[in-house]
Order: sequence, then structure tokens, then C-alpha cells
Amino acid sequence: MKAYQNLEARKKRISALNNAMGILHWDQETMMPVGAAPARANVLAELSVMIHELETADELPDLLATAESGAQQLDVWQRANLREMRHEFVHANAMPADLVEKIVLAASKSTMIWRAARPNNDFASLAPKLDALFDLKREEATIKSEIMGITPYEAMLDQFDPGRREAQVDRVFDDLENFLPDFLQQVMAKQAAGPRPIMPEGPFAIERQKELGLQIMKIIGFPFERGRLDTAHHPFSGGADGDVRITTRYDENDFIKNLMAVIHETGHALYEDGRPTDWLGQPVGNSRGMTLHESQSLLLEMQAGRSEEFIHFLAPLVKRILKGEGPAWETDNILHIYRKVEPGLIRVDADEVTYPLHVILRYRLEKAILARDVTTKDLPGAWNDLMEQLVGVRPTDDKNGVMQDVHWPEGIFGYFPTYSLGAMAAAQIFAAAKRDNGDILPGLGRGDFNPLFSWLNQHIRSKGCLYMPDDLIEKATGSGLSTEAYKASIKARYLDE
Amino acid sequence: MKAYQNLEARKKRISALNNAMGILHWDQETMMPVGAAPARANVLAELSVMIHELETADELPDLLATAESGAQQLDVWQRANLREMRHEFVHANAMPADLVEKIVLAASKSTMIWRAARPNNDFASLAPKLDALFDLKREEATIKSEIMGITPYEAMLDQFDPGRREAQVDRVFDDLENFLPDFLQQVMAKQAAGPRPIMPEGPFAIERQKELGLQIMKIIGFPFERGRLDTAHHPFSGGADGDVRITTRYDENDFIKNLMAVIHETGHALYEDGRPTDWLGQPVGNSRGMTLHESQSLLLEMQAGRSEEFIHFLAPLVKRILKGEGPAWETDNILHIYRKVEPGLIRVDADEVTYPLHVILRYRLEKAILARDVTTKDLPGAWNDLMEQLVGVRPTDDKNGVMQDVHWPEGIFGYFPTYSLGAMAAAQIFAAAKRDNGDILPGLGRGDFNPLFSWLNQHIRSKGCLYMPDDLIEKATGSGLSTEAYKASIKARYLDE
Repeated sequence: MKAYQNLEARKKRISALNNAMGILHWDQETMMPVGAAPARANVLAELSVMIHELETADELPDLLATAESGAQQLDVWQRANLREMRHEFVHANAMPADLVEKIVLAASKSTMIWRAARPNNDFASLAPKLDALFDLKREEATIKSEIMGITPYEAMLDQFDPGRREAQVDRVFDDLENFLPDFLQQVMAKQAAGPRPIMPEGPFAIERQKELGLQIMKIIGFPFERGRLDTAHHPFSGGADGDVRITTRYDENDFIKNLMAVIHETGHALYEDGRPTDWLGQPVGNSRGMTLHESQSLLLEMQAGRSEEFIHFLAPLVKRILKGEGPAWETDNILHIYRKVEPGLIRVDADEVTYPLHVILRYRLEKAILARDVTTKDLPGAWNDLMEQLVGVRPTDDKNGVMQDVHWPEGIFGYFPTYSLGAMAAAQIFAAAKRDNGDILPGLGRGDFNPLFSWLNQHIRSKGCLYMPDDLIEKATGSGLSTEAYKASIKARYLDE
Repeated sequence: MKAYQNLEARKKRISALNNAMGILHWDQETMMPVGAAPARANVLAELSVMIHELETADELPDLLATAESGAQQLDVWQRANLREMRHEFVHANAMPADLVEKIVLAASKSTMIWRAARPNNDFASLAPKLDALFDLKREEATIKSEIMGITPYEAMLDQFDPGRREAQVDRVFDDLENFLPDFLQQVMAKQAAGPRPIMPEGPFAIERQKELGLQIMKIIGFPFERGRLDTAHHPFSGGADGDVRITTRYDENDFIKNLMAVIHETGHALYEDGRPTDWLGQPVGNSRGMTLHESQSLLLEMQAGRSEEFIHFLAPLVKRILKGEGPAWETDNILHIYRKVEPGLIRVDADEVTYPLHVILRYRLEKAILARDVTTKDLPGAWNDLMEQLVGVRPTDDKNGVMQDVHWPEGIFGYFPTYSLGAMAAAQIFAAAKRDNGDILPGLGRGDFNPLFSWLNQHIRSKGCLYMPDDLIEKATGSGLSTEAYKASIKARYLDE
């Protein structure tokens, strides 16, 4: 028990540093004057080194072993906490310090080059930096793979979605790859036969858009007493324990972008805010990995947020706040805009039907990169071929092709799948919630999220890391993660309704 | 040399934590949602403990002794850095870790209560929190006093103004207490005989006031690429290395408050921004204590900012930006407003003649609190009595009496004297600068602060902690800190001009 308590105290300290870094990161993206960037980078680097030292302290192997051998004295939350501590220890200690540093430097270089190269469509200048970084990431994956007894790619995946294995991802993605292209053709045929959505004409004043976002956050139940909304280049959800901060960005010609970002990030924020308060600061109090996190944002954005019930509530509000007039602002038209399916080149702009195809492409390619089945030089061509094959459109330049995402230049492998696994989980969780509580959809129709959220609080948010991701999904929904609910939901939405 | 370098590496880490806390403190006052306060307090407490542990590491006594015995190998900056390290070591090691944490938590609690209690004029709800905090501060003062061989009050003072002793403060304050009341009567008599300043009539829109503040900051040369202006309950200057953030507050009926706050805090920020860049993150790169810090803000606000030359430049700008019309906006009238001397209840609103009397009151009372010569319960009455005796006005409520400042709720003792010692230093430094460079006053007349700032950069800002505070003042001005320049300046300004 003493060893376990010692470990808890250490995690409390690491959590304080992580909380500080959470606010510093938020500040960097929203408030920080540009000239402070070099000083801020030094502060963040030093805090990261401190966290790494705490995660790799000499006493940890003994402490963990002692605590584990006395695990029968611990309650279920403590035991789960100890399991998470072991998991964090394995990831932090697998890597030699000099490899960690080399990866940080190589990632920072290639990200810098990417920022300049992408607008110039200049993959050639990025390629050598990616090459160097990919080599280091292969080294990381191999080392972790050997220590953890899983495949190199699984070692990457495991950081973001603990316990996730390739066979399961393959099963889900193969199923989607079989189902979606055909389904997409049917949806597009049906939409071509129906009325074309009319786009409301801008400009939409930023102030009105901001007011709209705040109103919707209030309706959903964003905890403003423990959170904020600000503006940043990219929408994100961040902050610290008990302090959830989301950002959005405004486009004068397109109010939907802000609207969707605000709902999506509110989903992330409510998950963070709903974690078990008694366990904040401990690993078991964390959110349950990126598949679950994405399930919570997509549940709000795609499942609840695009339900017919909620759109009927939302559309008149949007019209009123943005002072819209004419047929473009009618509820049925807004519903059509929201549900327009169209293959495109850019993942972040994709609709919920084509989105998984963008992810499958990245999944296949990043496995090939790690396995040296594709060279960096051949990556743009491989991207374009797969894009054409999966989505049916072919990029004519690399900035809208292989260079569109920051993930690979940042050295992030194994993250992409969680977007679509999250979409599957969102559909499955929403279906289970609706099955358990018949007032969830009527609630959305009157702008009342309480029925939905009391279910989510009970089954997902308050569970923290008590269970492994798939166990959590199974306990909440009654079955393991699959594509069934997602496929049923898009069939109903795009073909039947 | 190796011991010294080891110490530098340790200070670099402490500085990263301090920088993080600087942004977290700023965030707490400007951006943080109120409900995040408890979690934030825990994070700050944990980071404080980490700093404290680093400042009290077992290896430090040996490292310091070794470095000091090899000091002849160090250059003057390194030697001064080592002296500052020793000073910080003495302060940090005097305190047991649990006392540090108790004080942080108690201060955070009483500050939160103060925020709610002050507007409600509710000293009774604040008193128990103050009481608990004062006990802890007495413990701190007694411990440090014994270790450092100075009085308990000096041990408090020494944290903010290293080397400052009670005898010197008494000499300065006794001199002021003898001089000011009589002088005040003469000024008031003279002002009563002259034209009464006409107050421009509000409301003054917050947006215009904000624009005015930003314009003036730009004219003075605030480094916006490495800094920000925001709104907070109480104006302050904070942030991190290379990231100077000031705040102000707006009163729709009084634009002067914001104007003065912005100029004052810009003085603080420019001092921080002008520190020796090669030494940021090391003790010798810090600003030289609070008397010097206040000298830099007051030099800008009271000396340069209220000079006839600058007011002649400023008044038309104010009139234009606030869209003023009529005689109230004439330069001579603005000058009269700026120089109106009038005893009042509130320190932060006080003119430069009565201000030291507000400080002397606090100096006497906080010495009495530490010495248990006054109970917390009797504090409001003692405050009101002294106020009447020194300034000649008596508060009718506590929110404009003993509860007006955040310092005591934050557990800050020994800070108040530095405001008026800073005012003395400001007058003395400004007089020396004008003596050295005849273009300083003409520069202010055309809104050009370069002549003044190149002197300040050379003699004050770039020196960091190379010298002790009084040595820095003597080297910069040619004589030790005294009341002479201040008295000469207010005599010239209020009786002769």
C-alpha cells in the first residue's frame, strides 16, 4: 500500500506539470505574443524533460513491482490506476533518452519545413526531413515492439488507444472499404435526384457567428464556469483539469465551419469535464484514449448534432442569430446542407460517409512507411493512387494530397485510425443510449441534452480509465466495437429518411 | 567552475517553473474561468513545492560552498549570479516545505474570499482567513529572522528589496511623515486659490479608453511583439521572460485611472523587457527587487508622465481619441487634473504627495500585525484611526479601508514600503537622467521616450542584479537613496511652477 501511495504522489506531481503545460499550450495558440515563441519553447522543453525524468525515475520498477504484488489490497479504481501507471511506465521507459531527443528535434525540423513547403506545394524539400524522421520512428516502433511483444505499428497505436491491435483495425477498415464505395454511389445518386441545397450567402459577421457559437454551447451545456471559448488557427480542445478550453476559427463566408467546430470541441470538452473528479490528477482519472475521445466529439457533432430532431431545433436559431432571410435558411435546406455527401480531397472537410476512406488511406500508408514498403520519394504517387481508388478523386498537387496533414511531419503515427474508430464508437454508443432512453431524441428536438448526457455521464465520462477502451465500449453498449451501428446510422440517414 | 555550472543548470530549471507560474498567474487574473480556481490553486501549490525542493536540494550547500571558494575564476556577472543564488538559498532554506505549501493554500483561500467579501464590505467573513494566514506569516518571519540575523519584518522586506533594513526605511518614512503633512497643507492652500480643474464629463466608452491606452503604450514603446494588454480587477505587470503582460481596468466615468495604470504598468514591463538577455533564466538576470521595479513604473507615471512637457504632448491626444470638446479638455486643465492634490481613502488613486502617507500607514500596521500588536479583529479600527491621523480622512466602510488592497489577503508583507522607496528612487533617477541628457524633457514634449530610455537601459534595466539595490541606485545617480530628489520635485511641481 505504501508503494502504491508513493506512486500516486509521483503521478500527482506529473499531473501538475501536465496541467501547467496544458494552459501554456492553450496560451501559445490563443494569447501568446509571437515574439515570445522561442522563450516559450524553452520552457515547454524543460517541463517535458522534468516529466520524462519523473516517468523514468530509478525507483519506479521496484515501486511498481511492490505495488503490483500487493494489488489484492487495492480497490478496483486503485487497481486500474496501477495498471495505467504500468502502461505509462512501459511507454516512457522503452525509449533511450537520446532517441527521444533526436525524434523531438527531427519532428520540430520537419514540421517547420512542412509549414513553408505545404503552401508552396514543395514536397521535394520536405522529403529528406521526413525520411530522417521516419527512420527514427521506425527505430522507436521496433524498440517498443520488442519490449511490448506487439507489432511495430501496434506499438504506435497503443500510445493513443491502449490495447488496440492491428487485426481488429483491419477487420473494421476492411469492412468499411467493402461497404463504403458502393454505398457512396447510392447516396450520391439519391442526392443528385433530390433538390440541391442552397448555400446561404455571406458575409456572416464574426460577432454574430461568435454569438451563435456561444448560444449553442450554452444550449448543449458547456460548463462556462469551468471553461472558455477562444479563437485559434485550428479548433482544439485543451486546458487543464477542471478548466476545459475550446477554440474555433471564423470564416466570414462560411458559418458552418465554426458551428461544427464548436459542437465537435464541446463534445471533447464535456468528456474531459465529466471525468471522475475524485481521480483527477491520477492516470485512472484520464479520458480513455483517442478513440473514445473522438467518439465523444463525433457523437455530438455527427450523431446528435446532425439528427433530424436537433437540426429542427437548431435551424431556426441559426437563422435568427445570423439574421438570415429566404429559402436558404429553411430547416429542410439546412438539413440538406448538413447532410451533403461529396467525395473530396481534404480529410478535415470530409462528410461522415467519405471520412473513413481518408483514414483508411492514411492507415495503409503509415503501416507501409513503417515497414519500408513505400519510400518517402514514392509517397505522393502512392497517396494519389490510393485516393483515386478509395475516394474516387485524384489530387493534382501535393498540398491537397500527401502534405495536407501535420501528423507525419510531427512524427505522429498510429493516431489517424482513432478518428474513424471513434466514429464507429460514436454511432454504437449513441444507438445504445437511444435504446436505453427513449427521451434522448425528443430531448434533442427541444434543445435538451440532459437525457443524452445523463446516459453518457453514467456509462462513459465518469468511468475515466477504469476499463480498457474496448471493455468500456462493451460495458456501455452491450457489444464489442464494430461497424454495425455506424453503417445502420448512415443507411438510415442517407438512404431511408 | 563545475559546481557553478551545476548551479546554473539548476536555476535554469527553476526559471522554467517560474515562467510557467508567471503565465498561470496572469491567466488566473485575466482569463481563467472562476470554477477552475480550486484546481489551479492545487497546480500552483505543487509547482511551488517543486521549486522549493529544487531551492533546497541536499547538494546545494556543498555546491554553493565549492562555487564560492572558486569565485576568483568567475567573471563579475557570474560572481553576482552566485551572490544572488546564495541569497535565494538563504530565503528558501529557512522555510520547511510544509509551511510553504500551507501558506500558498491559505493565501489562495483568503484571496478568493477577499474577492467576494470586498464588494460586500464584509470584513467579518474575511477575518478568519486572514487570521490563519497571518499566523503562518508570523511563523515564516520568525524563522527567517533567526536564520538571517535580522528582524522579522526585515526578513519580509528582504524578499522584495534585498539588503533593505528597518532603520533606513524608518529614516525615509520619518522624514516624509515630518515633511508631508505641512507640505500638503501648503499645496492645498495654493490649489484652492487657483482655478479649480474641470472634470471632463463621461461616460467614456471602454472601447475608446482601450484605444487610448494602446496608443499611449505604442508611443512609449511597449514591445507588443513580446507582450500584451488585458483587463483585470487590479492592474499588474506579469508574464514570463520575453513575454511581458500588463493589465488595466476601465471605469466609464473616469478615464484617468486606466491612463495612469497603463503608463505605470508599461514602466514595469519595460524594466522586465530591458533585462540582460544573456542572463535571463539566471538570478542575476532578474530585475533588482521591488523598490527598483517601482522606481521604473513611477518614473514613467509620476516623473516623466506628469511632466509639463509630456502633458503638453498627451492632452491633445487624449482629447482627440476620447472625442472631447470644451474647456475641460484644454491642456492646462488636464495638467491641473493630473496634478490635483487631495487627501483620499484609496492608495491606488492617491496623488504623489499623499501616496507615501498611505504607505506609511500600511508599514506601521503590518509591523504591528507581525508583532501581534494589533489583532485581526481590531485591524479595521486601527486602520481608520491611522488614516485619519496621517492623511486626515476617515473611511466609513472597510471596502474603502482595510480591505482595499489584495496584498494582505495574498500574504504579502514587506512589500508596501517599496512603493514609496520606489517613488524616492524614481525622483532621484529621473533627476540624474535629466542632468546627464538635456534632450530627455524636450523628447517627452514630442512623445519621444528614446533619450530617457537609452539612459535607463544603460544605467538600470540592463544591469539586472549585477549590483545590490542601493549600489545600483548610487552608481546610476551618484548618491545613496534619499528623499531629497522627491521633495525637490514635488516642491517645484506643486509650489513653484
